[in-house]
Amino acid sequence: MRILDIRDATESIRSGIRNAFIDFSAMTVSAVAVATDAVRDGRPVIGFGFCSNGRYGQSGILRERFLPRLRAAAPDSLLDDSGGNLDPFKLRACYLGNEKPGGHGDRAVAAGALDMAIWDAVAKTAGLLLWRLLSQRYNDGKADDRAMVYPGGGYYYPGKDLTALQDEMRRYGQQGYRVVKMKIAGAPLAEDLRRIEVVIAVLGEGGRLAVDANGRFDLPQALACGEAMRPYVLFWYEEPLDYRGHAVLAETYPGAIATGENLFARIEAVNLLRHAGLRPDRDWIQVDPALAYGLTEYLGVIETVEAHGWSRRRLIPHGGHQLALHAAVGLQLGGAEAYPLAFQPFGGFADDCRIVDGHAHPGERPGLGIEGKAELYAIFRKLVGK
Amino acid sequence: MRILDIRDATESIRSGIRNAFIDFSAMTVSAVAVATDAVRDGRPVIGFGFCSNGRYGQSGILRERFLPRLRAAAPDSLLDDSGGNLDPFKLRACYLGNEKPGGHGDRAVAAGALDMAIWDAVAKTAGLLLWRLLSQRYNDGKADDRAMVYPGGGYYYPGKDLTALQDEMRRYGQQGYRVVKMKIAGAPLAEDLRRIEVVIAVLGEGGRLAVDANGRFDLPQALACGEAMRPYVLFWYEEPLDYRGHAVLAETYPGAIATGENLFARIEAVNLLRHAGLRPDRDWIQVDPALAYGLTEYLGVIETVEAHGWSRRRLIPHGGHQLALHAAVGLQLGGAEAYPLAFQPFGGFADDCRIVDGHAHPGERPGLGIEGKAELYAIFRKLVGK
Repeated sequence: MRILDIRDATESIRSGIRNAFIDFSAMTVSAVAVATDAVRDGRPVIGFGFCSNGRYGQSGILRERFLPRLRAAAPDSLLDDSGGNLDPFKLRACYLGNEKPGGHGDRAVAAGALDMAIWDAVAKTAGLLLWRLLSQRYNDGKADDRAMVYPGGGYYYPGKDLTALQDEMRRYGQQGYRVVKMKIAGAPLAEDLRRIEVVIAVLGEGGRLAVDANGRFDLPQALACGEAMRPYVLFWYEEPLDYRGHAVLAETYPGAIATGENLFARIEAVNLLRHAGLRPDRDWIQVDPALAYGLTEYLGVIETVEAHGWSRRRLIPHGGHQLALHAAVGLQLGGAEAYPLAFQPFGGFADDCRIVDGHAHPGERPGLGIEGKAELYAIFRKLVGK
Repeated sequence: MRILDIRDATESIRSGIRNAFIDFSAMTVSAVAVATDAVRDGRPVIGFGFCSNGRYGQSGILRERFLPRLRAAAPDSLLDDSGGNLDPFKLRACYLGNEKPGGHGDRAVAAGALDMAIWDAVAKTAGLLLWRLLSQRYNDGKADDRAMVYPGGGYYYPGKDLTALQDEMRRYGQQGYRVVKMKIAGAPLAEDLRRIEVVIAVLGEGGRLAVDANGRFDLPQALACGEAMRPYVLFWYEEPLDYRGHAVLAETYPGAIATGENLFARIEAVNLLRHAGLRPDRDWIQVDPALAYGLTEYLGVIETVEAHGWSRRRLIPHGGHQLALHAAVGLQLGGAEAYPLAFQPFGGFADDCRIVDGHAHPGERPGLGIEGKAELYAIFRKLVGK
């Protein structure tokens, strides 16, 4: 078996939404296709992958560094011991060759897209759904029937009033979600509290609402907001701060804290566990494999979390994509974010994925199952010229 | 005043050298030119900049994200209050617009190259050497006559035996350097100790030798190496570890520790100061402005260091480039790395820069003075078509 071709394209996911830090008016992602000479069910195996939203496409790093290294490698050096499938760890060692440690940013995003396509190809070559392959190889065959999912929504949007925010949350409820998330910290505190209250009025209880500050606060603001939100008993309070700020907040805010979408490597998860004062009985870690060197690195994040005495159930990847859902089910994580409305067509799960009582399953197609998401599959078909 | 054009090129600095982590067989940097309509001494003002070595050129991020944002901005919005010069902080806010916090890697490198070119243009427009402009604006007019510099050398190199290593160190001595640096952690400990000993035999004392492990060690290795090197009383022990590893090492290794070339933002310097147990009376922080969002961010690093009770004299930027030398003199830092042999023509100072008793001065040309480095200036002349 060998890789015939790897292609990437930069695709727009622009929209009018805004969080506390950025708008998404020029947001892009990288789509990557790994074409192999393997054939399954009469069709050539091609792996598809993409990076998560929020960090832009990474064609420069892919084309100038990663892909030339893979092309220069001896094909057999990228295969598993059987010679019958790709080995994602050997591929990673190759395309990250001669990269210095540290500086985990855009490079991790580029690797996230490429690694996703590689795992899709590996699972398809093995004739397995990705979640089942992950379960067999890395979880003693155990898996969950479904994963808890919550929509990342409630963005700031030009002209979006409180009624529109309530309508959005009602839609999520109609779609089957239980817990929903909204953005805060992009408006004065009093206004954010009003937004939170009207959403709780729709949901019926604060325990169904997570709020996301996107790292916008300084410590006094984070503490003041935490104090003001305390009576709501929210599902979680996301990304208020830096490591030490989290440690201070955790001493005064009794509710759950979630963070990690801006940590891009296993070593950054280690620093978080060492220095951020997070509490293993309630807090959440959101490292996103599609931004942080892919599943290959994420398996190490799981190891790290467990080595520190935490349960992997405290992991709930950011990103709202099919990869996170496979990982959540096959590796028995705490759940996954969902993007039923945002970042289409890269956001969201397979078209036939139904949300039942706030839970989802990645479906029954081999690999990642991007073929079951028509609009996204069309992008990849165009990329590979089919 | 306005910007007429910004161009970038990816230039090779490939070589056969190797540190404990990577080789430099395909290393590149980004060269950036900012052309303005300002005229000084009858010539148009063009700012030149580049990123430091070790992290590859960044044309993708520059061309896809930073430069389009600058081109879309109203020209007056990028000027200082007088309207007569560019404002690096306004430019930065523009080209980093809609970038999420965290993930400080390749993006910081791209910004480092662009920011350097902007400061070069600003100083030239002001008719000032960059170090003097920095001194006037940010250091109450104070400056040093010269900065301590040390060559980053002693790389692993195919076929390089102990005699060649000694010859390299002798050359640095003949060039006027006092303190020199060599790589370790790329060979077994016994071999590295032998390498260290033959270099000390040339230098006469361990206090003139810094060693650089490039983040290769785990904690047991770092402690064992520190214990073995203790009798040499070295100038410093660089990049043994992660934050907590440094904190553990600092409790047992009495000599100086240096680190920071792989920290790419002010917040990462904050984390280092909070969590790495470094000692303000002896340890060194090597954040490199040409890898870490440029001088604009570096001024914040200085603030941070002083806010934590450290002297700015403990700052000694990585990178071996003219920018670090200007910063060291004009902002009165502890010194700067030098690359008399490596990473040419981007490494090293102006051609007429003389090292005297281990110190250097950035020279007398306006701006960064890249015009005084003939081979490097030729690259930029080609970039701007002149």
